[in-house]
Amino acid sequence: MSREDLAFLLYEWLDVETLTARRRFAEHSRETFDAVLELSEDMAMSLFAPHNKLSDAHEPRMRPDGTVETIPEIKKALDAFSAAGLIAGSFDEELGGMQLPTVVARASTAWFQAANVSTSGYPFLTIGNANLLAAHGSPAQVDTFVRPMLAGRWFGTMCLSEPQAGSSLADVTTKAVKDDGPEPDRYRLSGTKMWISGGDHELTENIVHLVLAKVPGAPDGVKGISLFIVPKYVPEGGVATDAERGGAARRGERNDVVLVGLNHKMGNRGTTNTLLQFGDGTYAPGGRAGAVGYLVGEANKGLAYMFHMMNEARIGVGFGAVALGYAGYLASLEYARNRTQGRRPGEKDPSAPPVALIEHADVRRMLLAQKAYAEGALALGLYCSKLVDEQHTADDDAERARTTLLLDVLTPIAKSWPSQWCLQANSLAIQVLGGYGYTRDYDVEQYYRDNRLNPIHEGTHGIQGLDLLGRKMIMQGGAGLVLLAQTIAATAERGRAAGGEAAGHAAELSAAVERLAEVTGTLWADGDAQVALANSSIYLEAAGHVVIAWMWLEQLLAAEGKDGAFYEGKRAAARYFYRYELPRTGPQLDLLARRDRTTVDLDPAWL
Amino acid sequence: MSREDLAFLLYEWLDVETLTARRRFAEHSRETFDAVLELSEDMAMSLFAPHNKLSDAHEPRMRPDGTVETIPEIKKALDAFSAAGLIAGSFDEELGGMQLPTVVARASTAWFQAANVSTSGYPFLTIGNANLLAAHGSPAQVDTFVRPMLAGRWFGTMCLSEPQAGSSLADVTTKAVKDDGPEPDRYRLSGTKMWISGGDHELTENIVHLVLAKVPGAPDGVKGISLFIVPKYVPEGGVATDAERGGAARRGERNDVVLVGLNHKMGNRGTTNTLLQFGDGTYAPGGRAGAVGYLVGEANKGLAYMFHMMNEARIGVGFGAVALGYAGYLASLEYARNRTQGRRPGEKDPSAPPVALIEHADVRRMLLAQKAYAEGALALGLYCSKLVDEQHTADDDAERARTTLLLDVLTPIAKSWPSQWCLQANSLAIQVLGGYGYTRDYDVEQYYRDNRLNPIHEGTHGIQGLDLLGRKMIMQGGAGLVLLAQTIAATAERGRAAGGEAAGHAAELSAAVERLAEVTGTLWADGDAQVALANSSIYLEAAGHVVIAWMWLEQLLAAEGKDGAFYEGKRAAARYFYRYELPRTGPQLDLLARRDRTTVDLDPAWL
Repeated sequence: MSREDLAFLLYEWLDVETLTARRRFAEHSRETFDAVLELSEDMAMSLFAPHNKLSDAHEPRMRPDGTVETIPEIKKALDAFSAAGLIAGSFDEELGGMQLPTVVARASTAWFQAANVSTSGYPFLTIGNANLLAAHGSPAQVDTFVRPMLAGRWFGTMCLSEPQAGSSLADVTTKAVKDDGPEPDRYRLSGTKMWISGGDHELTENIVHLVLAKVPGAPDGVKGISLFIVPKYVPEGGVATDAERGGAARRGERNDVVLVGLNHKMGNRGTTNTLLQFGDGTYAPGGRAGAVGYLVGEANKGLAYMFHMMNEARIGVGFGAVALGYAGYLASLEYARNRTQGRRPGEKDPSAPPVALIEHADVRRMLLAQKAYAEGALALGLYCSKLVDEQHTADDDAERARTTLLLDVLTPIAKSWPSQWCLQANSLAIQVLGGYGYTRDYDVEQYYRDNRLNPIHEGTHGIQGLDLLGRKMIMQGGAGLVLLAQTIAATAERGRAAGGEAAGHAAELSAAVERLAEVTGTLWADGDAQVALANSSIYLEAAGHVVIAWMWLEQLLAAEGKDGAFYEGKRAAARYFYRYELPRTGPQLDLLARRDRTTVDLDPAWL
Repeated sequence: MSREDLAFLLYEWLDVETLTARRRFAEHSRETFDAVLELSEDMAMSLFAPHNKLSDAHEPRMRPDGTVETIPEIKKALDAFSAAGLIAGSFDEELGGMQLPTVVARASTAWFQAANVSTSGYPFLTIGNANLLAAHGSPAQVDTFVRPMLAGRWFGTMCLSEPQAGSSLADVTTKAVKDDGPEPDRYRLSGTKMWISGGDHELTENIVHLVLAKVPGAPDGVKGISLFIVPKYVPEGGVATDAERGGAARRGERNDVVLVGLNHKMGNRGTTNTLLQFGDGTYAPGGRAGAVGYLVGEANKGLAYMFHMMNEARIGVGFGAVALGYAGYLASLEYARNRTQGRRPGEKDPSAPPVALIEHADVRRMLLAQKAYAEGALALGLYCSKLVDEQHTADDDAERARTTLLLDVLTPIAKSWPSQWCLQANSLAIQVLGGYGYTRDYDVEQYYRDNRLNPIHEGTHGIQGLDLLGRKMIMQGGAGLVLLAQTIAATAERGRAAGGEAAGHAAELSAAVERLAEVTGTLWADGDAQVALANSSIYLEAAGHVVIAWMWLEQLLAAEGKDGAFYEGKRAAARYFYRYELPRTGPQLDLLARRDRTTVDLDPAWL
């Protein structure tokens, strides 16, 4: 991660200091933001980065007694993270938080994800969980579960997938039945959840699972899904406010949630990833089997609540991909500056000394591509995070509606584009290092393995494509697309006014976004969803390239009139993106405009 | 790997039975070819595939005494492979071989590489080594080293790279000094070689290294490189013919070649990959330190000899990438047929049963893409292998020159295109399996890790681009490009004559190859190598897509007028390639036609 680039994006481009004019952030200033960023950098470098390879080589292990063993460096790093107040960073002061803007908190996470994506997974899941409960939980639930999470005493998870239902939440079969007893929102859950990151460990004294389940008699499909809090240990004395309890929540008896097994993955090996069994009778809280769970909000509205977390988790996944892409870029850049190899084309004297790798045009292309992918995607992640702040602190309903809509449209892109292209960046980083890059002696192969998860979890690439083209672009009568196009057009207008290279880019960007809008109309012209959505992944990729081209014009404009290598680098990366990348959308949009039926008409027997 | 597809390509398309009309292959028939393919399939499935994951999880280990421990399944599989005569398959009968056509031998390797790329690496390196020595070694060297390798008693390696010189062979510093004693071609070598696959192990009684080194006083650069045979154990009684020796060669005293360490890689973990030290005095063969080596052919011509091996090794690398791409395709296809998930777009009834993954358009796209990549690249690998046979058994010099030139032009593409796109296929295979694909419980993540090596070794992607655009396309006054264009044009002409879909593809193919030729001319218009070669990797990718489009038109024509799912599948994959893939070359060729200077003009300080 680059301190200089974060400062450029936050202060010179997004002008996040203006957020301090909003009441929620009034106590803040550039100094407090910088203090958080510096703390994050220091802690990430000193406590997270040093065990990144170690935790990859020494995966969590399930002991014979069913508990999980992780290397001690993980707990040490996380205890320091919690103690520094970073879990609570963006939460209300009333909850012990710092009320940091989301965009600053997000920038802080980049340091941790670049240093160690596996270890930082635990608190980031916890933050997402706590965010959801702070918004939708009852005061007693907030006191009982959110406060211990923000203090780092308990960690959180999200439990959506089941072994038979990954992307298809409509098919969730975990059951929740009203429990006996005085607590009205207390249920007993039974079922199996798969792919649960942080689903078990001994890093904290309790784990707060947020679980999607169905109450008997609920409607079929996603409209019958409810959301429950299912802690690993039932809170002592049940769910209550701290005032009622007379102090902070403490864990009570063991709940009926059992670790069945750990998943062994290609990367992200340091985060436990689990198969959990709820309510099989291994434990009997309150004297009888069944996992105790507490209903969040109203029954059958679980998916809507979960999407509160999911949308931020999706931006977070994209941001994690960015951090890995950026880390690989910097590692390969350093290697290319120092390693000598070969000679320039046309050099006839074999006794001439070899040149640094960075002198070769193809190596520069691979570095510039990584820079364009990582810095373009970083800009998008921060832009979306600032939209979250604007949404939360909007002056009026119109502004709130506008930022919400723009964020809705951008979320599938902010999730998927970095997951695809920062993975590609990691592949290029390996390539720059050559044979060394393929060994486990260097960091880049791990980045590549770690990053390969990102197009899969929190909604696969294909799911994001369906979300963008099948929902976001057409909701409210196409208002999302119109708003995106208008917002990009405003940047293009500034580009045209700036003249020079910016004007050239602006013209290409305008043409691309107009073509995207036109193609969207063509795809939905007759409302046949099967044909319209047949190539939604390709639509997602084309829209992503248009959006990142927009981010590069934005950065170019923020660098305008400024001298020095840093700003020249921004201009070079923007140039690369417009020359090498944006043109890729041409054939993609041509295919979409033809309403291509190749896959629709395919007989599966032909495969 | 698919038996049906291999039969289609070998017999219905390439018509390899006609090779039996050539004297070298006169003893063969479709029956003998099929017998080899069936044997290969059986042996690959029963002895190679079962330990593929095991050897990934249990890498070779260096014991304290400096020897290498590998899991016993590897030796068992390789002993059976050697005993079946498969190492000697394509060699002369006089050497104990079967005189199989290269194209059939290559098809046989697909089974082994798909089953276990690491274990099959040992004999395939040995075959390449033996091929080189059979062509360029003296009769005594052939008897002493080639015969034990063909019998599987000894294995072979190629030692090019050094720690400070990977792609840049001009900078090799390993030294060879004439040895005392009666043998005129006996030298003493000293130096360090890196990335040596199969560089040490206990699988065979001896290891025959082919080592690039420089004799003192040799010219600078690649013109001063000589090639030496440096066995792990010096042959007893020195190098002699079997007649002189009175029997087969036996290993004598330990040579001064020491295993310094094993490289630990992301994939390909079952093949030992080593750092070797030559001549550091650990051993003293003949009573003094220095690794004993035998000069092959003439001094200073080592690189030309090595390229005899390298060119076939490059086609072999591409073919290995194909095998992995194909294996991932079939694994994800089976998964997609059996796993149910979600519903079709537009299905409003949430209680409708979930459909198989293969019913989703995006999953079909990912399967069809894999099919198009793997089967297209398989066709190219077999086509090039048949060119090797035609070259070796040509009726006259003109035919030999033609096949040699076409093979020269196609080699960098046959190496790099599958390495790029069959890796992409493996990524799509993971994506089809979703979270499961990312776990080590399934095979596809290993294919992806294994395959990531292929764009790196035997000449990186960038090196192949320089070779294609900087040498192959312009040598002999551009004759290579002309021959390639003519050969493709002949296929396009047949496509036009066939009419229908083939005629449409033919028109697009003709346009693409004409554009490629035109752009090649533009790039070299003023002979400025720096600008011409700045985007040679992109040129390589565009040329590769054109060549694979050609392979798909060829397959379409071979399937013409034939009914059934298999042939419909060929037509669908061809359609996919022309609709989704070939258009990617448009923006690539536009960039090249502009003689883009982005990377040339880049100041490294801006990165």
